[in-house]
Amino acid sequence: MESLRLTIAYDGTDYFGFQVQPNHKTIQGELERALSQIGKTPIRVIGAGRTDRGVHAEGQVVSFRHDLTLPNERIPKALNRYLPRDIRVLAAQQTTEDFHARYSAKEKTYRYQIVNSETPHVFLRNYALFLPEKLDIQAIKEALPLFLGTQDFTSFQATGSSVKNPIRTLTQADLTLAGSLLFFRFSANGFLYNMVRNMVGTLLLVGRGKIRPAEITEILARRDRRFAGTTAPPQGLFLEHVQY
Amino acid sequence: MESLRLTIAYDGTDYFGFQVQPNHKTIQGELERALSQIGKTPIRVIGAGRTDRGVHAEGQVVSFRHDLTLPNERIPKALNRYLPRDIRVLAAQQTTEDFHARYSAKEKTYRYQIVNSETPHVFLRNYALFLPEKLDIQAIKEALPLFLGTQDFTSFQATGSSVKNPIRTLTQADLTLAGSLLFFRFSANGFLYNMVRNMVGTLLLVGRGKIRPAEITEILARRDRRFAGTTAPPQGLFLEHVQY
Repeated sequence: MESLRLTIAYDGTDYFGFQVQPNHKTIQGELERALSQIGKTPIRVIGAGRTDRGVHAEGQVVSFRHDLTLPNERIPKALNRYLPRDIRVLAAQQTTEDFHARYSAKEKTYRYQIVNSETPHVFLRNYALFLPEKLDIQAIKEALPLFLGTQDFTSFQATGSSVKNPIRTLTQADLTLAGSLLFFRFSANGFLYNMVRNMVGTLLLVGRGKIRPAEITEILARRDRRFAGTTAPPQGLFLEHVQY
Repeated sequence: MESLRLTIAYDGTDYFGFQVQPNHKTIQGELERALSQIGKTPIRVIGAGRTDRGVHAEGQVVSFRHDLTLPNERIPKALNRYLPRDIRVLAAQQTTEDFHARYSAKEKTYRYQIVNSETPHVFLRNYALFLPEKLDIQAIKEALPLFLGTQDFTSFQATGSSVKNPIRTLTQADLTLAGSLLFFRFSANGFLYNMVRNMVGTLLLVGRGKIRPAEITEILARRDRRFAGTTAPPQGLFLEHVQY
């Protein structure tokens, strides 16, 4: 048995998220189907981030054990032949037996894209949140660093979900502008369920002047989801990179 | 009756081109359907460029006459409510009765996008030609200016099509690079059918070393489609801008 690690990109528009679900098209499902077509036995993969329905990935990482006879460098092409066009294997590399795409990850980076313009953007309709109203960019930029560091992110965790430890360390919380496009970028040692989309939803409250930048600190301190903003829609979110 | 001019953008992936066709989804068909929904009578529109199946537009212009009672500034939003998400009206402005989206156009600009990389690009799969092989960019850049000026473009016109006058004036023939992306940009007072895609197909022969840059001049002089390269696929082509 060999241990392999794949880097994959996918357009999440037509999928019910990463994780396998009965009767629904998922990224994991398609990958495992393609793997079983080039191999002889069913293969189960582990993904670094379990992206939701409509969320995209540029650098998702999956790991699995296999006895494929194919040399590693030929695996991406072989899999891409069986995968739908909106999922692509970018690279394959051998790894150690103890490598686990999720648990071995040191840091993940997510990007959230917004089109902030009065005119809609046809080509980004599935890849960004469209917001025609004017935003206070300065206020958002003031709020962003308040997310940094090791903190309890309970307020930004999806209602109903629970983890043993809601403490995460954010090492990047940036906003870059390119014309009418806004790119938020967050890196952390891990993210709670819906955390990025809830941070973006709350930052948009800041951008609309509904709350002051400094209130981010108060919302974090509350440890209560009800004090943060609404969850930003999935189509703006990209799993950009996973660091090991 | 008022005369109106709309600027529209569309993702051509799921359409049989701009022009109305029975039993096929077309851009013109969707526009006319939306117009008939906000007006009372059927409205026929004229497009600046009759883009083919799978070809996109960022700045297509259409003109028509109407007796809509809606003020012009409210027309984009009203139409966008009835249009599918992959067609967006960006602007509406009143024009003169003699304005004709096609015949009044002074210059059109088309862009052709190529992903030149060994790794496929998921998010550009419908918006670029994917080419994994190495290209001689310097040779392509040498060939490009040979298309400029007032010339007979018969060799770059689709087989079977015929126009009274195959002379066109090219004012821009550029290639810009951004990472693994290649952007060709062509401006002219008009384009023959398939002309941009045939020029790109021929430039790729130059890039692959199959023909020398200087042969572009010879191919133009032949006035025979058989001497130019194959037609580049539609998904890389964008109608960028129409100048009046």
